[in-house]
Amino acid sequence: MVSQCQILGSKNSQSVHENGSTGKHHPQVLINLDHGDPTMYEEYWKKIGDHSVTIAGYQSLSYFSNKTNLCWFLEPKLEEEIKSIHNLVGNAIVEDRHIVVGTGSSQLIQAALYALSDPLNEPDHPVSVVSAAPYYSAYQEIADLLRSRLYKWGGDANSFDAKDEPYIEMVTSPNNPDGAVRKPVVNGTKGILIHDLAYYWPHYDAVTAPADHDIMLFTLSKFTGHAGSRIGWALVRDKEVAKKMVKFIEVNTIGVSKEAQLRAANTLHTISGSCRKDKPDSEIENFFKYSKHVMAERWNRLRDVVKKNELFYVAKSPIQYCNFTRELTEAYPAFAWMKCKDGVDCEKLFKEHKIQTRSGRRFGSGQDYVRISMLNGNEEFDLFLQRLATINNISK
Amino acid sequence: MVSQCQILGSKNSQSVHENGSTGKHHPQVLINLDHGDPTMYEEYWKKIGDHSVTIAGYQSLSYFSNKTNLCWFLEPKLEEEIKSIHNLVGNAIVEDRHIVVGTGSSQLIQAALYALSDPLNEPDHPVSVVSAAPYYSAYQEIADLLRSRLYKWGGDANSFDAKDEPYIEMVTSPNNPDGAVRKPVVNGTKGILIHDLAYYWPHYDAVTAPADHDIMLFTLSKFTGHAGSRIGWALVRDKEVAKKMVKFIEVNTIGVSKEAQLRAANTLHTISGSCRKDKPDSEIENFFKYSKHVMAERWNRLRDVVKKNELFYVAKSPIQYCNFTRELTEAYPAFAWMKCKDGVDCEKLFKEHKIQTRSGRRFGSGQDYVRISMLNGNEEFDLFLQRLATINNISK
Repeated sequence: MVSQCQILGSKNSQSVHENGSTGKHHPQVLINLDHGDPTMYEEYWKKIGDHSVTIAGYQSLSYFSNKTNLCWFLEPKLEEEIKSIHNLVGNAIVEDRHIVVGTGSSQLIQAALYALSDPLNEPDHPVSVVSAAPYYSAYQEIADLLRSRLYKWGGDANSFDAKDEPYIEMVTSPNNPDGAVRKPVVNGTKGILIHDLAYYWPHYDAVTAPADHDIMLFTLSKFTGHAGSRIGWALVRDKEVAKKMVKFIEVNTIGVSKEAQLRAANTLHTISGSCRKDKPDSEIENFFKYSKHVMAERWNRLRDVVKKNELFYVAKSPIQYCNFTRELTEAYPAFAWMKCKDGVDCEKLFKEHKIQTRSGRRFGSGQDYVRISMLNGNEEFDLFLQRLATINNISK
Repeated sequence: MVSQCQILGSKNSQSVHENGSTGKHHPQVLINLDHGDPTMYEEYWKKIGDHSVTIAGYQSLSYFSNKTNLCWFLEPKLEEEIKSIHNLVGNAIVEDRHIVVGTGSSQLIQAALYALSDPLNEPDHPVSVVSAAPYYSAYQEIADLLRSRLYKWGGDANSFDAKDEPYIEMVTSPNNPDGAVRKPVVNGTKGILIHDLAYYWPHYDAVTAPADHDIMLFTLSKFTGHAGSRIGWALVRDKEVAKKMVKFIEVNTIGVSKEAQLRAANTLHTISGSCRKDKPDSEIENFFKYSKHVMAERWNRLRDVVKKNELFYVAKSPIQYCNFTRELTEAYPAFAWMKCKDGVDCEKLFKEHKIQTRSGRRFGSGQDYVRISMLNGNEEFDLFLQRLATINNISK
């Protein structure tokens, strides 16, 4: 997921067309690693062949996908593929859950905030939405955009005093920006939880157990790399909550693009087919093996560069057993959460070296942190490492 | 456009599988003409052949469509086709306008409300959003859904007292529900107008001049019948307003599905190709001739039934010259706005005859009015007319 400012920030960037020279002569072109535009799996989708989706002119004219479903705009084929991939990977319980499709998981966060806060509403007393710092920077923007009387941003969950009042806590696990595995921190008597599990896939971290929460959000963007489709889904235990989420999406966008849903179904089907254990001879390369290899290789190269300097570092990741890959693994998060020496404005430092990152301040942390996307294209990632390697030398 | 309740209402309906019998023995299956699900052009899209769009697995991964465009998530091909169709039909000025694409025009209404009200905002003094009754029933739902402090529903524009305060007036022309050609009615000193032109196409009414307003909203749904795509667009004069609309869509859904945009571009291209005056021998039937014929035929049949009864009527439409078709024409609105005798609960009366309509109360009018969709499939429309013809007999 990316936020408005991530996107806006990126408008100042340009494609990398330079010769890659680094060192004392700073390159002229900014590498934008502020937003998390997931183009790192493009080669996979190119090399496995066509796997295209074709939609005829007369298809999917209606607003409706399935009038008998609670989520009447959810394409049955997508519903089937969502259930199938979760059952295959084992990262979330889908039985007895209502699936609500959204225009990306951003829309589903808003749908969930509406669904949870509307029944609690007291005039002029909006419900606080909190998340433990460092938290995903878009939560605050989403919660405060329309200055709703239903809910408002309540800041860092670590310092939130629930006082027996209802509140909503966003639990992001693995976390954006730092990749940490998380649990709720407020633990008040009237807390309602939204679990944002955008990164709970085996290429980013070990799948240790199927997630089993009341509201679980997933998105295609970071999972398969298809951010342009704008497809997310929620697994919702309570029927009334699911109905209110559907109501929000009805009023907000009258459903979700059928074309995007049909393509997402196709994409999930391809991935499932690539890694079924009962079909080891599949002609398509296992998506998770490929994507994990890409992430692991990037992280190893990043750590090699980072350990040669004394200005910044990234935290180590614990080793865990992944039930899906059946091996011990460390995490390879979608973002590097980098700490500079105390007192250093890390975003500014990197910007001087033509690397656009996002300051820790945006995530409720200090300026000595930055978040760096690990998801850009290969050429940009290579150049980023080259430039990063020069920072320490210059600063010494 | 349909609203949440239109959609929810329709969930009680079923496909028509009966033998069409009418009269004293009321059919068991409800015909749902409450919502405006535009499936009436399905036959056109089937008979002109494939005209499909194919999207490869590796296409459109990024959030971005064009980083140099103010609306960075707008596909260049769609932008080109939007300009082309407006220039061809002559229903809106596109020169020197910013095009903002939305997930249907519902999202664009919210984007415009945000863009216009945010700079005006005074704490606890939301800007009133008004529209002249009968108004599109979704406006109120959209304006009040999140109980925003930026804007609120202000009701019927005819009875709104602007008192030198800023307000936003929705001007829907041709109007939903009654098809009337409209101008603003408040005319206060600080009014800001949003023109909703979803039905300003030659199959619904005469195109008398290119619309030339500050904010003009269009949608694919009612124009081509592709409601499932969720594609709308705004033509916006002021750059700062367009930027704020883009910001809303960034936070709300991080852009608009690329698949839907690519298909919409394809759809508009097919329509443009079908009716270029310099290619009269096109192999594809002229879309506007076909669609206008469908609507005219339905309206003529409806008027024939209506004139034989004394319980309800529909207003006559004025004859106007259409610059696009180069002929005098009456309007063939997407909805029939039907008036029953004073004191009759018109929705209830029709419901007794297994016709689900939407009460005038939802549009800020009385219960003696109903809105009836003219856009359903042929089989449902035929059955509707059969049932309608029996109402008068029973009531006499």
